[in-house]
Amino acid sequence: MAYSVRDIARVIGADIVGDGDVKITHVTDLDNGTVGSLSFAISRQYVKSLQATQASAVIVPADLVAHCEMVALVSDNPSLSFARAVRYIYPADELIPGIHPSAIISDECEVANNVAIGPNVVINAKCTIGDNSVIGPGCIITAPCFIGAYANLIARVSIVGPASLGERVIVHPGAVIGSDGFGLANDRGVWEKIPQLGRVVIGNDVEIGANTTIDRGALQDTVIDDGVKLDNQIQVAHNVKIGAHTAIAGCAGIAGSAKIGKYCGIGGGAGIQGHIEIADGVQVTGMTKISQSIQHSGVYTSGTAAQDNKTWLRNALRFKELDRIARRLQDLEKRLANKKG
Amino acid sequence: MAYSVRDIARVIGADIVGDGDVKITHVTDLDNGTVGSLSFAISRQYVKSLQATQASAVIVPADLVAHCEMVALVSDNPSLSFARAVRYIYPADELIPGIHPSAIISDECEVANNVAIGPNVVINAKCTIGDNSVIGPGCIITAPCFIGAYANLIARVSIVGPASLGERVIVHPGAVIGSDGFGLANDRGVWEKIPQLGRVVIGNDVEIGANTTIDRGALQDTVIDDGVKLDNQIQVAHNVKIGAHTAIAGCAGIAGSAKIGKYCGIGGGAGIQGHIEIADGVQVTGMTKISQSIQHSGVYTSGTAAQDNKTWLRNALRFKELDRIARRLQDLEKRLANKKG
Amino acid sequence: MAYSVRDIARVIGADIVGDGDVKITHVTDLDNGTVGSLSFAISRQYVKSLQATQASAVIVPADLVAHCEMVALVSDNPSLSFARAVRYIYPADELIPGIHPSAIISDECEVANNVAIGPNVVINAKCTIGDNSVIGPGCIITAPCFIGAYANLIARVSIVGPASLGERVIVHPGAVIGSDGFGLANDRGVWEKIPQLGRVVIGNDVEIGANTTIDRGALQDTVIDDGVKLDNQIQVAHNVKIGAHTAIAGCAGIAGSAKIGKYCGIGGGAGIQGHIEIADGVQVTGMTKISQSIQHSGVYTSGTAAQDNKTWLRNALRFKELDRIARRLQDLEKRLANKKG
Repeated sequence: MAYSVRDIARVIGADIVGDGDVKITHVTDLDNGTVGSLSFAISRQYVKSLQATQASAVIVPADLVAHCEMVALVSDNPSLSFARAVRYIYPADELIPGIHPSAIISDECEVANNVAIGPNVVINAKCTIGDNSVIGPGCIITAPCFIGAYANLIARVSIVGPASLGERVIVHPGAVIGSDGFGLANDRGVWEKIPQLGRVVIGNDVEIGANTTIDRGALQDTVIDDGVKLDNQIQVAHNVKIGAHTAIAGCAGIAGSAKIGKYCGIGGGAGIQGHIEIADGVQVTGMTKISQSIQHSGVYTSGTAAQDNKTWLRNALRFKELDRIARRLQDLEKRLANKKG
Repeated sequence: MAYSVRDIARVIGADIVGDGDVKITHVTDLDNGTVGSLSFAISRQYVKSLQATQASAVIVPADLVAHCEMVALVSDNPSLSFARAVRYIYPADELIPGIHPSAIISDECEVANNVAIGPNVVINAKCTIGDNSVIGPGCIITAPCFIGAYANLIARVSIVGPASLGERVIVHPGAVIGSDGFGLANDRGVWEKIPQLGRVVIGNDVEIGANTTIDRGALQDTVIDDGVKLDNQIQVAHNVKIGAHTAIAGCAGIAGSAKIGKYCGIGGGAGIQGHIEIADGVQVTGMTKISQSIQHSGVYTSGTAAQDNKTWLRNALRFKELDRIARRLQDLEKRLANKKG
Repeated sequence: MAYSVRDIARVIGADIVGDGDVKITHVTDLDNGTVGSLSFAISRQYVKSLQATQASAVIVPADLVAHCEMVALVSDNPSLSFARAVRYIYPADELIPGIHPSAIISDECEVANNVAIGPNVVINAKCTIGDNSVIGPGCIITAPCFIGAYANLIARVSIVGPASLGERVIVHPGAVIGSDGFGLANDRGVWEKIPQLGRVVIGNDVEIGANTTIDRGALQDTVIDDGVKLDNQIQVAHNVKIGAHTAIAGCAGIAGSAKIGKYCGIGGGAGIQGHIEIADGVQVTGMTKISQSIQHSGVYTSGTAAQDNKTWLRNALRFKELDRIARRLQDLEKRLANKKG
């Protein structure tokens, strides 16, 4: 299938500099550009690749057009325009509605129109599934839930506590939604389980990565607002609230009752302590530990940078006496001040 | 369904201050209290919420009774009493015994009385399942194992190495028990797999979170003692021993042959190095790296606290030369001491 | 089943010191040695255990033979020799070829000879499966893929993006291969998904741990080279390249487009930032954050060592002002230098 640059420019709302009749058959990055490929560059950092690429067309900001020997599509936001071009050139597979004969679906379920339910799906609870949704192979739903229109549970998703998923929610394989929160009371050293009664409430346009886990709330709900994007292997504990359009990278952990604002970015492997609040627009870098509330937007980091192990070890030993080092410094300062006087 | 405060007080062993006939229909936290709700407060920190709540009854320690306008149930351990009240008010679903026709169960299995085996379960190994246990939908057992009475494998649990699970064990979806340990021998750069021969031995009253993985031992067994509680996405490597009544929060990793004592608490995302020993009663805070044995109970932490990224970067650069900084300080101290002399 | 020490020595290529007719029935570590067991010791660190063991034979380096009262098998690499002895004494279960009647396999699949496909497997894409491979119970393959000969997908593995797996690849339960990368473009605060088009390409002799996730590439492929060993719960993001014979321990996370060299070792819980390069032969210790490229082989560490929480807190507060501490030290040095002058 081939598309003209003109067609693509129209779809993504870009101006063309060059020949709009050039045919595009696929997309690549700049370094792997070939005849027929569409690529993109976001900044001057890519000028060399832009000059060397064999791509037939590129999406670029206006200030890079001069570096394009091929046809350019001009965009203020080349990443976004490229994403939309890719969706146009590679449309999603058409949904083939129907319930696979191997699926085991409770009579209490309400399944809307144009829904696809795959092989070996088990739904043994009262569940409402919206129009045009896909429940992929091996998904298991054992608790009452509402799934909005155009949802896509790719495969092997488990929903085991009461839940509500908005429209256009995507859930990747191995994700678990609605598992019991880690609620324990202690009886002279021995832990007793606190039954978990809350739901998981997920807004529209949320994406949930592979093997990510989202526990149901204890008494209230665990809430993931509209447009939140969760990467793989993230742990979201009970009662957590994640504000709209926040993105969280792989392996991050959000402890119980933490509240994360809107438009935040949480780096991979970061850890957010329980019962704290993070303001809107906060960026947390990868593997950072956040153990106190953050009131102001900004970028936050903890930890130290990697060094060769021997040097690190010497420094890490000094860290263990850092307070003492600071006090010794203070002493010296005082002694020198006294001498002066 | 409604319960009188008197009934609840009897079940949880609390004294009543106020009208024992008050009816309770549900539970909430203080801030969401409504007519008919039971709530709880554990300390003076909650006095304001206690005074503002609309809950009909609260479980409180004796020193908070004076702040209760509603009926109070007096308990030394309100969290625990509340947990028990919740279990009383929201009893677990009754087990409906039976083997779903889609389950594929080896003839070698011994299934005791009153067991429920869900849809799409596969058990193709010699397995003994105790009375009143639930093997939820999609569970897969491919290795010989013993599962005690009143076990609950919620859904989609995999047991793929030889294992023994005690009574009342709960396993959440996506958990993997008995996978091969990461045992490798190196032949001039190339890794060769060391076959893993041990079991996973899990005591009574253990809870295992969603997507948690517990590897089988290499030569010995991996052992999880009675009452241990593991949250989601925890990795327990081969030969690990976890002492009774230890609780481990989400995303923690325990490396091979580590031995953790009884009554420990390991925070979320913490990492325990292999082949070390941690004493009884040790608390490890979230995201802490434990790379040496700990002989004494106490609270242990590593890492640094988060700062705004620019300040952090300046400090992190200094960390890289911290040993040199300490030596320079020492030099100054010597020089000043010599001047004195 | 019993094996003579002579047989075992022949298989592993070891010299015998002692009676080659001694019978071996099982393997143990030194501390659990019994009559009939084969054990091993790698260094002088184990001399005491070696002298105390009841094992009937041990694999040892030449310099430990003098400490062996039992028959010794002499090896330059006792771990490796032991691994091979274990494989000889405990041969893998023989593959029983056949497709379980509950498996749901697309007509487009090409299944080679002597393949075992387990219960509840779903393959609804064009897939080629090589000779002598095992697709264990509950595996789901929804995208075109090639699986080489002697592969072993233990159970409940998901392949949901286009993939190629080499020969003798082992994949443990819960692993997800080919899920969408975390590719997002931002439109004035709102995230839009960038369709992911690349594959996952996995070499020969790769092992992939339980609940590990490997995303498909965005435009290029995610590549795991020959002999790579991945432990449990590792996250491999889109476009990552992992060089041959690199081993990565549990819970590590490799962010998008990172490139890791050959013969590396990445410790448990370590985090590798996106778009960086790590040279061949680099060792990263557990829970280390690597945020910059590493040009030279060696051992690298970040973070601090654990302390009791109160001491740590004092030091962590000082870390927050470490740059200021260093500047104050510099000031003192200058003042003293001036005095001298």
